[in-house]
Amino acid sequence: MTVTSASLPAGPHASLRERKKQATRRALRRAALDLVAERGFSQVTVEDIAAAADVSPRTFFNYFPSKEAVLFGTDPDRVAALRARVLGEAPGQPALDALRVVLATEARTVTQEAAELDGDPAGWLRRMKAVRADPQLRAAHAVHMALLECALTEALAERLGTDPERDPYPALLAGVATAVIRATTIFWATSGGVVPLEQLTDQAFRALAAGLPDNPAMRPASQAVTPRKDGN
Amino acid sequence: MTVTSASLPAGPHASLRERKKQATRRALRRAALDLVAERGFSQVTVEDIAAAADVSPRTFFNYFPSKEAVLFGTDPDRVAALRARVLGEAPGQPALDALRVVLATEARTVTQEAAELDGDPAGWLRRMKAVRADPQLRAAHAVHMALLECALTEALAERLGTDPERDPYPALLAGVATAVIRATTIFWATSGGVVPLEQLTDQAFRALAAGLPDNPAMRPASQAVTPRKDGN
Repeated sequence: MTVTSASLPAGPHASLRERKKQATRRALRRAALDLVAERGFSQVTVEDIAAAADVSPRTFFNYFPSKEAVLFGTDPDRVAALRARVLGEAPGQPALDALRVVLATEARTVTQEAAELDGDPAGWLRRMKAVRADPQLRAAHAVHMALLECALTEALAERLGTDPERDPYPALLAGVATAVIRATTIFWATSGGVVPLEQLTDQAFRALAAGLPDNPAMRPASQAVTPRKDGN
Repeated sequence: MTVTSASLPAGPHASLRERKKQATRRALRRAALDLVAERGFSQVTVEDIAAAADVSPRTFFNYFPSKEAVLFGTDPDRVAALRARVLGEAPGQPALDALRVVLATEARTVTQEAAELDGDPAGWLRRMKAVRADPQLRAAHAVHMALLECALTEALAERLGTDPERDPYPALLAGVATAVIRATTIFWATSGGVVPLEQLTDQAFRALAAGLPDNPAMRPASQAVTPRKDGN
């Protein structure tokens, strides 16, 4: 199972079974986001989410391992798939290139999920903001990001052939990558999704590859002054 | 008041009053670290910390605004001073250079505080690990880092003459800077402080300025293969 097949809307050629699975997954995520926005994270149980999506708690756990996972859209195999892609993407290129490709793809997935969940991105962003206002949920999200960062560190260490206990670099790269995810997602959400998240992610990694100059292509002002087209 | 004067050990030429203030500050931090490591963050009050350091709660609040602040060593003026330094350091150079200089200095301060608080860095690191194991404290630390990141974003936006609501770049730079702080501090602590934190910080920012290549000077393996001395 790949990251995308686990999370993207099923295409027209998906099997009936696959489309039903995607519909259930979508219903669970929508129910979880709605309930948490309404009551707060601590006041919602897996049982509540399952009931709102009209499935059994047992079925819930076939899709997501926890109420955190359903909120953040973390499929059981997602982290493993991410790890595999960090190892396999852009062979022979710097690890930063692999991270750019992998995380821009993830960004596209997140955006498509937003559309899939709500149709209206503004509504989804509003709901995500309500979710972020919950202290317990913010803490759960921090744990979620820490796990992601840990998985990225291990994958990067393996790609670089190094030991993260003795070499600080994989953890630094992973920390920078999650900083990109956070900064771009927050900007994307608060700005109402004007610039696509995938584009923000790609531009952020290109700014990193350029050594974080004061005027990278991603800055709207500098784009106006010195318009440039980023090649590949 | 500057960041360093607020947090470094008072030198031999400090006034008696200044030395007494530093001693009280040190006593409060040591008491807070000890109590939290012993009982857990939620079981320790400002009153407990003040009593253990033999001062009144009123005196406590002359030094620190909260029990979070005393643990993280955040002086009331520290964030303001950091902001001023991000604006004033390395004029005419990229903001990344200013961040490198400012945060390497901060790293030296943190290390000197560790020595000042415990003499033995290993003991201090052990205590910091105990502190990190507390979920509530980890959450408090996350909030502390978020506030720092927010202050850095505002300072960087001012330095770059831009609006962080419309330009994602200051937040990206600030997120990357806090990623450096986290990655270097964790590596420094878990590796027992073998490489000085200040040096790790400086090397991390140099790796960023170089566009995060696979083999920057900070990697021990690559240093062995291609020894190089970083100039200024």
